[in-house]
Amino acid sequence: MPISAEQRAEIDAQRVAHHTTLRPTVPALESLLYTPFELLDHGFLRVIDYMGDDGAVVQAARVSYGRGTKKVSEDAGLIRYLMRHRHSTPFEMCEIKFHVKLPVFVARQWIRHRMANVNEYSARYSILDREFYLPTPEQVAGQSRSNRQGRADALDADTAARVLDMLRADATRCFDDYETMLDPDGIGLARELARMNLTLNTYTQWYWKTDLHNLMNFIGLRADPHAQYEIRVYADVMRDILRAWVPATADAFEQYRLGAATFSKGMLAVLRRRLAGETVAQSDSGLSKREWEEMHAALGFSAEI
Amino acid sequence: MPISAEQRAEIDAQRVAHHTTLRPTVPALESLLYTPFELLDHGFLRVIDYMGDDGAVVQAARVSYGRGTKKVSEDAGLIRYLMRHRHSTPFEMCEIKFHVKLPVFVARQWIRHRMANVNEYSARYSILDREFYLPTPEQVAGQSRSNRQGRADALDADTAARVLDMLRADATRCFDDYETMLDPDGIGLARELARMNLTLNTYTQWYWKTDLHNLMNFIGLRADPHAQYEIRVYADVMRDILRAWVPATADAFEQYRLGAATFSKGMLAVLRRRLAGETVAQSDSGLSKREWEEMHAALGFSAEI
Amino acid sequence: MPISAEQRAEIDAQRVAHHTTLRPTVPALESLLYTPFELLDHGFLRVIDYMGDDGAVVQAARVSYGRGTKKVSEDAGLIRYLMRHRHSTPFEMCEIKFHVKLPVFVARQWIRHRMANVNEYSARYSILDREFYLPTPEQVAGQSRSNRQGRADALDADTAARVLDMLRADATRCFDDYETMLDPDGIGLARELARMNLTLNTYTQWYWKTDLHNLMNFIGLRADPHAQYEIRVYADVMRDILRAWVPATADAFEQYRLGAATFSKGMLAVLRRRLAGETVAQSDSGLSKREWEEMHAALGFSAEI
Amino acid sequence: MPISAEQRAEIDAQRVAHHTTLRPTVPALESLLYTPFELLDHGFLRVIDYMGDDGAVVQAARVSYGRGTKKVSEDAGLIRYLMRHRHSTPFEMCEIKFHVKLPVFVARQWIRHRMANVNEYSARYSILDREFYLPTPEQVAGQSRSNRQGRADALDADTAARVLDMLRADATRCFDDYETMLDPDGIGLARELARMNLTLNTYTQWYWKTDLHNLMNFIGLRADPHAQYEIRVYADVMRDILRAWVPATADAFEQYRLGAATFSKGMLAVLRRRLAGETVAQSDSGLSKREWEEMHAALGFSAEI
Repeated sequence: MPISAEQRAEIDAQRVAHHTTLRPTVPALESLLYTPFELLDHGFLRVIDYMGDDGAVVQAARVSYGRGTKKVSEDAGLIRYLMRHRHSTPFEMCEIKFHVKLPVFVARQWIRHRMANVNEYSARYSILDREFYLPTPEQVAGQSRSNRQGRADALDADTAARVLDMLRADATRCFDDYETMLDPDGIGLARELARMNLTLNTYTQWYWKTDLHNLMNFIGLRADPHAQYEIRVYADVMRDILRAWVPATADAFEQYRLGAATFSKGMLAVLRRRLAGETVAQSDSGLSKREWEEMHAALGFSAEI
Repeated sequence: MPISAEQRAEIDAQRVAHHTTLRPTVPALESLLYTPFELLDHGFLRVIDYMGDDGAVVQAARVSYGRGTKKVSEDAGLIRYLMRHRHSTPFEMCEIKFHVKLPVFVARQWIRHRMANVNEYSARYSILDREFYLPTPEQVAGQSRSNRQGRADALDADTAARVLDMLRADATRCFDDYETMLDPDGIGLARELARMNLTLNTYTQWYWKTDLHNLMNFIGLRADPHAQYEIRVYADVMRDILRAWVPATADAFEQYRLGAATFSKGMLAVLRRRLAGETVAQSDSGLSKREWEEMHAALGFSAEI
Repeated sequence: MPISAEQRAEIDAQRVAHHTTLRPTVPALESLLYTPFELLDHGFLRVIDYMGDDGAVVQAARVSYGRGTKKVSEDAGLIRYLMRHRHSTPFEMCEIKFHVKLPVFVARQWIRHRMANVNEYSARYSILDREFYLPTPEQVAGQSRSNRQGRADALDADTAARVLDMLRADATRCFDDYETMLDPDGIGLARELARMNLTLNTYTQWYWKTDLHNLMNFIGLRADPHAQYEIRVYADVMRDILRAWVPATADAFEQYRLGAATFSKGMLAVLRRRLAGETVAQSDSGLSKREWEEMHAALGFSAEI
Repeated sequence: MPISAEQRAEIDAQRVAHHTTLRPTVPALESLLYTPFELLDHGFLRVIDYMGDDGAVVQAARVSYGRGTKKVSEDAGLIRYLMRHRHSTPFEMCEIKFHVKLPVFVARQWIRHRMANVNEYSARYSILDREFYLPTPEQVAGQSRSNRQGRADALDADTAARVLDMLRADATRCFDDYETMLDPDGIGLARELARMNLTLNTYTQWYWKTDLHNLMNFIGLRADPHAQYEIRVYADVMRDILRAWVPATADAFEQYRLGAATFSKGMLAVLRRRLAGETVAQSDSGLSKREWEEMHAALGFSAEI
């Protein structure tokens, strides 16, 4: 259980403290504020604070004195235009802050997004909780053969159970020894040293804050089917939060980023020939086999067309 | 007058639109929200939005589940500790957004602060207003002799008047020609070209957003007596806004940053000798004449001590 | 003439000072080093230093101990893969530094690229040269009607001459007064104040350094036909420099970025229908008129297909 | 042994490949290029490439056409001035790239320096080596009582041996199981999953590139006595490299940053009173006990003075 009774009480206290503000406020996001979305076996993600809304994007794009909004349809059209043409600065005018609990190996991927602010729970200063990630059996998957950095289908139930036993036993033993080494009445090892004995599936947590533009970059990369499952679940929740927070931006993002595809110069040439009625085979397409497959995947066709 | 009646009406509309929020809210900053601080002859700075408060700094430093605050005195102590030891990441958890109107030559200094988000009024897309900065006579100062990039005392009244006449006449003529070149029923020159005829004291405006840590960096550099007066007036207002927004952080900032001084290894050696009762002259201090003066200035003594 | 005899001598001195190094070295770029590409009427761009080559991209992607390179064809294939899948970090491992002379209104666009390092000639500290940009007559263009921030065809010769007369006269008068105000034996106004009288076509200069990834972002945005001509000429030269410096990366960049096009979810649906033999009109495409035109432009067809 | 015979051969090949260049070259750094400084038990840091030298700092500060250098003493004086007044942009004009092998828990601290470029060896894509950090017995230290995030003296020999046995046994077992889970003829678990079983002292490696300004920030924070020993050893080597690369900058850095101390407004008031001959006790100093001690530590006095 990721949230203790005491923590729940602190969250509940935040959920009832209403304030009056003149700032742009998004009721759909207010209703999600502070409440954790539970993820993986002990993780969560919750929105702690936010700044701005769809109107703030429009206001910045127009550098206007008031809210800058006109008719809803005109605003949505402007947002679609900005998204399509990668005018990213107006989206930087909104900001969001999350509290996240996540396994260390996921945190190591996440932190690569440099355009963000982070405060992580310090294992030099504090003692970590006995919590480590164990996949569900259906996530215990084999190494992909086609994609060197991906996973294939789930292993059979017995093998998965064997894997989970190993992961559990190793993490448990490492944590036991972590506690033994830390014990102030026993060894009393420095926390900054003892932590090196923990496994990479140990949970950590942090406050993470970024702007709307960089949030979409994160979702674009991490909600992708090629992203590792264990970070994708966080990105998927962010995608839902995006819809609650800035619906017009989220629509444009789905249409022009997540649902879009980029075709290279060579692929465009093939498309042109085909649209003109010509039959084009890979061998005379000028594309490598891999690009040929990527083009068809983007079009939603099998490569054998 | 920087704000037209129409703009004032838009601002007034924002000042009365109260919302309910669960987010941390700062009444003292709410009372300043949207209202322009008028600066220079046509400029202004106003707060458009903000996120977080002193408690958010504490919450991030403690990576806590609730507000993270304890007694006010403990929180202030933690904030002072963070400031003193340059633990800057918790201050990055607060964000503020300004709408600023400023002369182009000031904007060119300001934009050097890269850790910020900006949307500027586009002179490729729109036509600028006939507004340019003219200093007050007491700001029409001579070139400093001691500081190659500073200004000395004000010029005499007649000379200042002559300067102001030149500035006014040149900016006016340039703007007249800008309009002549733009006239769609006349020349119809492209806006992106016509703008090159404007002088650097023409006003522009932008939305500018940054986090609390980078805001303090801005104030630290730009509220400094060596900063150019025309940007310093903006930084001085930000300093007041800081006090309204995050009073504990502002206190620590005044104490450990604005009011502080850094002494080099060599200066520390001199201080040690003096505190031990020794009389030290520049000639046997190991310091250059310039450092010697800087050390005394930091101590608030004249160098002749 | 942008380069004085004295400056030319300094550049010549750099061109003959050969050193021995163990660092990766690119002869084709060495042959361009220090020599200015002259741009516009007084501007230039020259490469001052660089770090890395195509091999450094490959080396970083493979995190290898030696050069990391295999066969040239394999390396080029890896670079194309990285470019296609927007794995940008290996490209950040190369760095380039330029010395650029450019009009202030171009500098104001350029500086928006924040992921770079800049040192600009200071008009607080020094006195600027009497040099301002005047377009060639064929660049004196009217305001575009279809694109609010673009330019249309050149104005007729007489009107262009009238524009150039105005630009020249205003810049000259402003510069004359700048000098009058600065004169230490006359008014002696502070440099930081006098500069505000200059027009936005005055030339400035800076050292500008960025990594290969951000260089390509710059070229992608600024070599685009929608970019203003006066910044595009700089980006076009960078594009040539890119080819000399990192030929495999430049090839991939042309293929997968500059020559590529992104289609939205809705456009992909239209493409699929067409490739399946269906005739699709804008009215039943689900696309707005604007997107319809953008799709056809990307395909190189007129929208009437 | 961190470097295999094959890797050594690759490094040796780089050490003999001399090229001719027109770029600024630093013989003292060339002599260190590519050769690993061995650190901890399996780690290393080596310089892979660099750009610029002390002259490049001066050149950028002066925005000059040639090397920009005058007499060596004037250049050093300018560099000291820039350092003292925190004019950081000229230092951003130099760049350095390292190849580093380091334990994961050190990498997690290191990556917090965001103004850098990183390519890390991917444990999704590749299989890690069986190498994990074990401290030397004298580094097996107890938890500090005065500093919640520091370590105290070394534990006694028997206890240290017990700690090392636990660390070794746990890391070994975790690595054994990692290999068992990965075995393509056995379980065949996906690499991206198997890695979660490794302990935080496992070694990883990366290419890490930053500019001279941010390198000094890194050294300033991580060569500090309060930094964890295991990252400090890397920063200490960087400090030596700094001296070889940019001796004038390194001198100024030691004098005005590493050897300097900052005194708060309140501390300055105490210094002034003391220099004027007054005896000041903590009780009437206006400083907290902690600040009182910090002030004395900075002055190199015990607090009882």
